[in-house]
Amino acid sequence: MAILSEMPLHLHLSSKISLVLHPHVMAHQTPQKPIHLPEILVVGPPSILSTYENQFSQKFHMLKPYESPIPLEEFLKIHAQNTQAVFTSGTFQHLNSTLQLLPSVRVVVTTSVGLDHIDLNQCRRRGIAVAYTPAIFSADVADLAVGLLIDVLRKISAANGFVKSGFWPIKGDYHLATKLSGKRVGIVGLGSIGLEVGKRLEAFDCKISYQSRKKKPSASYHFYTDVCELAEHSDILIVCCALNDQTYHLINKEVLLALGKEGVIVNIARGSIIDEKELVQFLQQGKIAGAGLEVFEHEPNVPEELFELDNVVLSPHAAVYTEESYKDLYDLIIRNLEAFFSNKPLISPVPLDE
Amino acid sequence: MAILSEMPLHLHLSSKISLVLHPHVMAHQTPQKPIHLPEILVVGPPSILSTYENQFSQKFHMLKPYESPIPLEEFLKIHAQNTQAVFTSGTFQHLNSTLQLLPSVRVVVTTSVGLDHIDLNQCRRRGIAVAYTPAIFSADVADLAVGLLIDVLRKISAANGFVKSGFWPIKGDYHLATKLSGKRVGIVGLGSIGLEVGKRLEAFDCKISYQSRKKKPSASYHFYTDVCELAEHSDILIVCCALNDQTYHLINKEVLLALGKEGVIVNIARGSIIDEKELVQFLQQGKIAGAGLEVFEHEPNVPEELFELDNVVLSPHAAVYTEESYKDLYDLIIRNLEAFFSNKPLISPVPLDE
Repeated sequence: MAILSEMPLHLHLSSKISLVLHPHVMAHQTPQKPIHLPEILVVGPPSILSTYENQFSQKFHMLKPYESPIPLEEFLKIHAQNTQAVFTSGTFQHLNSTLQLLPSVRVVVTTSVGLDHIDLNQCRRRGIAVAYTPAIFSADVADLAVGLLIDVLRKISAANGFVKSGFWPIKGDYHLATKLSGKRVGIVGLGSIGLEVGKRLEAFDCKISYQSRKKKPSASYHFYTDVCELAEHSDILIVCCALNDQTYHLINKEVLLALGKEGVIVNIARGSIIDEKELVQFLQQGKIAGAGLEVFEHEPNVPEELFELDNVVLSPHAAVYTEESYKDLYDLIIRNLEAFFSNKPLISPVPLDE
Repeated sequence: MAILSEMPLHLHLSSKISLVLHPHVMAHQTPQKPIHLPEILVVGPPSILSTYENQFSQKFHMLKPYESPIPLEEFLKIHAQNTQAVFTSGTFQHLNSTLQLLPSVRVVVTTSVGLDHIDLNQCRRRGIAVAYTPAIFSADVADLAVGLLIDVLRKISAANGFVKSGFWPIKGDYHLATKLSGKRVGIVGLGSIGLEVGKRLEAFDCKISYQSRKKKPSASYHFYTDVCELAEHSDILIVCCALNDQTYHLINKEVLLALGKEGVIVNIARGSIIDEKELVQFLQQGKIAGAGLEVFEHEPNVPEELFELDNVVLSPHAAVYTEESYKDLYDLIIRNLEAFFSNKPLISPVPLDE
């Protein structure tokens, strides 16, 4: 026993059971290379790795094809038989083809709440469990949605540039902005994020309506089945729905026309829910009043036509990038992976049987 | 009667009674130069004039020393005996000396809610009524306060610059930001604006406290008598109080130290409530985490040291610059001036007798 207690803690544990020490505790310990760590394949590396790399690498042996000189397909072939767990992000577009090359995979852990990058049918068929991160980011995403909206209406970023360029003493008063309070806000998709957005904007005395696949009995907001009708009755559209076959280019020319010249759009969901080419034209031609965009069709590429527009505020798909949520995210990811390697139920599984 | 009804409407009215036509109706009429319009002296010209100049000039004969080649003092001497009404803004620093040169003044109409530029004792003593614009702007100012706060915490302006400079595809993920939801917010001064700020931030699940001259029985937030104590117990300070002898440099080194390294400050009240030199040093040295500043000690001059700081968002004292509020403001100003020239009670008088 005396000998055991002097051994590094991880050596007490089987290779399928990861450590349960708090990451901050671990980070302060003398680095000792653990052996027989559970193996995870990392693809489309989640940005949380850049913050919690040390903590992850003390718990897992991470296979990183993106750091290897070997081409991805070859890399996957080498590890095909052993790879049971895949760790990925919401922006990795090659997940499904990757999974097809990995016959032994039993779990995919994604740092995203959106699941449009995962072929859930394939997972269901093959018995691959999927863990995701619902709710963790809802508050952060809703906060950013409101921030982008106020920024566009009140010209905060543009005015900040005006002051920081030293123009105030020279040019005098800044342009008139648009009031937020009292505006009619249409929420496209009243999931956990949409509800958080609604809750916040109610406090600004906005009038909230929403469009969704079906009416939410618990929501008191006015419901529209048709997104065009919602746009017609809104000063502001906030896109909060998931991306799927039904919502791809849901916000098209017709919807933007219905939103109209004074209308403002905020997208914190997925780029492809809006027909981006149309949106750019509408903004360039002043056919809508402004936009706050956190997501784009071809990230990280953003239509350059938007760079010059002061009434457009752009965010680099960073709604979930807060230190606090990253800590929560890290904890949830670890708990899911630990659960998997201990043959316990996942903490936040995607309900594949529904 | 037939002749009368064909005369321009303003000729029916005495010179002390202004027109009651809606400004939008008037703006569309054939321009006919009205005579004998009531006279108002405009000093520190309110920025609303640039938007509603035509409407004002159809209702009033405006004396504008700032457009005259004659020096101000001389200009005032010429009009000293006739000037009964002064129309001014909250940023005019020479109002009190101006009033001393105008023995006949009976009313001052200011477009501001703050009254720190007006010597109310002089007005009380001389029987000068003062009309101001309480409440009209509370929602707009609170909206901007929240917008600045989200912008600082979530780095919206900085990230917007990052994307618009084309850095996203080159540099990859943006920096981690700070979560708003759940933070402890300390409101300095729980007047109408402070209350609106609190209402909004409650919806972000922030924990609100406040400091004020005295406890507000109607507010359920935790009350601190001492602003240092409030800062100690807050992640975020939002300055919403009026500027007066008690609040000049209320936010000093001690308070900033109490707020601490992780603390963020937002000022939408008056620049001189914060010791600006100290604030700049704290920001430069990373002794507080960020600031959203709408007001400054020597507007329109802003300390240039702040221009380079991404964690500082600057706004050109434009919290009330929304089209909607300008319309409301215009209406309220006109109604006050009309009331004065009709010998009726002012619509929004400053209670000088209290």
